[in-house]
Amino acid sequence: MNQELLKLIESIRPADQSAMGRARERQAQLTKPAGALGDLEELSIRLAGIFGKEKPHPRGVAVIVAAGDHGVAQDGVSAYPPEVTPMMVMNFLADTPGGAGGAAVNAIARTVGAKVYVMDAGVNAELPDHPRLHRHAVRRGTRNLRTEPAMTRQETETLVLAGAALARTAIQDGADLLIPGEMGIGNTTPAAAVTARLLNADPQRVTGRGTGVNDETLARKVQVVREALNRTPTTDPLDVLAEFGGYEIAAMLGVMLQAAASGKAVILDGFVEGSAALVGAELNPALKDYLLPAGECAEIGHAAQLAHLGLTPMFNLGLRLGEGTGGVLAAPLILAAAATLREMQTFAEAGVPGA
Amino acid sequence: MNQELLKLIESIRPADQSAMGRARERQAQLTKPAGALGDLEELSIRLAGIFGKEKPHPRGVAVIVAAGDHGVAQDGVSAYPPEVTPMMVMNFLADTPGGAGGAAVNAIARTVGAKVYVMDAGVNAELPDHPRLHRHAVRRGTRNLRTEPAMTRQETETLVLAGAALARTAIQDGADLLIPGEMGIGNTTPAAAVTARLLNADPQRVTGRGTGVNDETLARKVQVVREALNRTPTTDPLDVLAEFGGYEIAAMLGVMLQAAASGKAVILDGFVEGSAALVGAELNPALKDYLLPAGECAEIGHAAQLAHLGLTPMFNLGLRLGEGTGGVLAAPLILAAAATLREMQTFAEAGVPGA
Repeated sequence: MNQELLKLIESIRPADQSAMGRARERQAQLTKPAGALGDLEELSIRLAGIFGKEKPHPRGVAVIVAAGDHGVAQDGVSAYPPEVTPMMVMNFLADTPGGAGGAAVNAIARTVGAKVYVMDAGVNAELPDHPRLHRHAVRRGTRNLRTEPAMTRQETETLVLAGAALARTAIQDGADLLIPGEMGIGNTTPAAAVTARLLNADPQRVTGRGTGVNDETLARKVQVVREALNRTPTTDPLDVLAEFGGYEIAAMLGVMLQAAASGKAVILDGFVEGSAALVGAELNPALKDYLLPAGECAEIGHAAQLAHLGLTPMFNLGLRLGEGTGGVLAAPLILAAAATLREMQTFAEAGVPGA
Repeated sequence: MNQELLKLIESIRPADQSAMGRARERQAQLTKPAGALGDLEELSIRLAGIFGKEKPHPRGVAVIVAAGDHGVAQDGVSAYPPEVTPMMVMNFLADTPGGAGGAAVNAIARTVGAKVYVMDAGVNAELPDHPRLHRHAVRRGTRNLRTEPAMTRQETETLVLAGAALARTAIQDGADLLIPGEMGIGNTTPAAAVTARLLNADPQRVTGRGTGVNDETLARKVQVVREALNRTPTTDPLDVLAEFGGYEIAAMLGVMLQAAASGKAVILDGFVEGSAALVGAELNPALKDYLLPAGECAEIGHAAQLAHLGLTPMFNLGLRLGEGTGGVLAAPLILAAAATLREMQTFAEAGVPGA
């Protein structure tokens, strides 16, 4: 393994148990019935552990949208043609009346003040230069994972490091909460293959309808995943990613590893994002301490990913868009959880009699 | 009925169906797979109907926290003593290092930029003057609903109008999304009684643990509600509110009626808030068009309220705090839903091929 990548993986430390203990004590003394803030209480304690403070103060939110194309799209596994990937990248970057970017993630990010970073991780098109486009493609789309390794091991590691580098940029720009997001026609197929292998699950259980394919296409998709898995028995996490994954999945893994290594939180939403997280949790289980839940997405297999990662989704809005949209929607809930520890008074501070 | 109140109730118009139709068409053309934004799509269409625009643009968020005490608290229906109500009001108003107010609703509201309005609707204490305290109490707490009407009909109408007046202030201050919230030790008991009568449900089905009472207290609470319901068969909504309700519940009803009458949206969260909404929906069913869901709270009976009002909760975080906290947490999701209609490009605008 690339030494820089190895160092990155090894630099992730478990969350600060002492800060979590102090935060747990403080939550119990805040001016509310015990437990009345529900899941926000545990979330606030996890934030204390990530930021190493009894009163965590995350501020900046960044969503890094990595885009890539997939050789397997030739097999007709999506409801959309591959040409949509570069056009959506241009949509992420477009100057629109609403602001910079006309896609869902742009619109939603503006409402919560999140910065959007757009990365060409391997789009199958000649994208024009743009000041907000971060170019890291090493190939115009992966090979067809059904018949051969989607990426070489070296390409894979290069993209992981590229994601990590962009995460460092976002952190330097002020991000405390990092949201990996993606765009790539066909990419729920590689995500399903990675998930099936790492969870040792039958492809049928973790292969879903993506952008909304019909029964016939879904059956083909399951078959494609099955053929891919039959090509190789590897369970080495980076090999699994190279064999079955995609450039944007590798980039999102890099974002997660760097966020955790830098002591920042990752908001995890979406099935494709989840497949990257599974790889990361194999590389260093401490990564899980830095992963915060967002919603439950509509894609089958997402629930199995979250259970494996120990995450309970906070909402179920039936989202199945990707782009990191669910993660951005979760950001205000996470900022609110931190604020309760930081800004609520205790019963003693407020002079209120407890229960 | 007071003529001003009658006029307020009658001035609520159903949502703008034409704007909703145009919004629905636009949602179908936005750059995403059809339906991929899940529940946010229907929410955005409802916002178009409320604000009468294909591209709704709600901005300001206000939470109006009404506080009141309850005669029934003497029966030991809460885990907390009634003295907590005034002390929590002072906590809402306190100057703390985090800003104005040291309660959960203050801390959470600051993270989303929501303004907090605090109203004394009938607290059983001599509260000191405070520039941010809106005084509307007509009595220091209700009578014991178990044995007599909690409020007179006139007191009830006065408080509804007081809530409406404070809502108008919030709207003048810029609020487009209004969140009724409450504080009042013992108030899940009146909420349960109002809910049981208006939904014609057995008290056991809609009486819950509130701030966290034990089995014995819960049994007493159910018995109290049963005795109250046995006092009178009335189903007139304002009489039900007077007989079994509370001053802060009446005030929240006023907030909802005024918001709807002014063409603003109400974010509905919490069981006590829900009991006020049930009264309002009886007074004018068009109110329901203006009620937007927040989370599912842990109180038994909340789900039945939401089903009756036609609302699907957006999240389930196990909250059972009240104060409008759940509504404030929902605000960013609602602002995001509106932004998708307003700021996303259509496939045609972005030059992206559709499915």
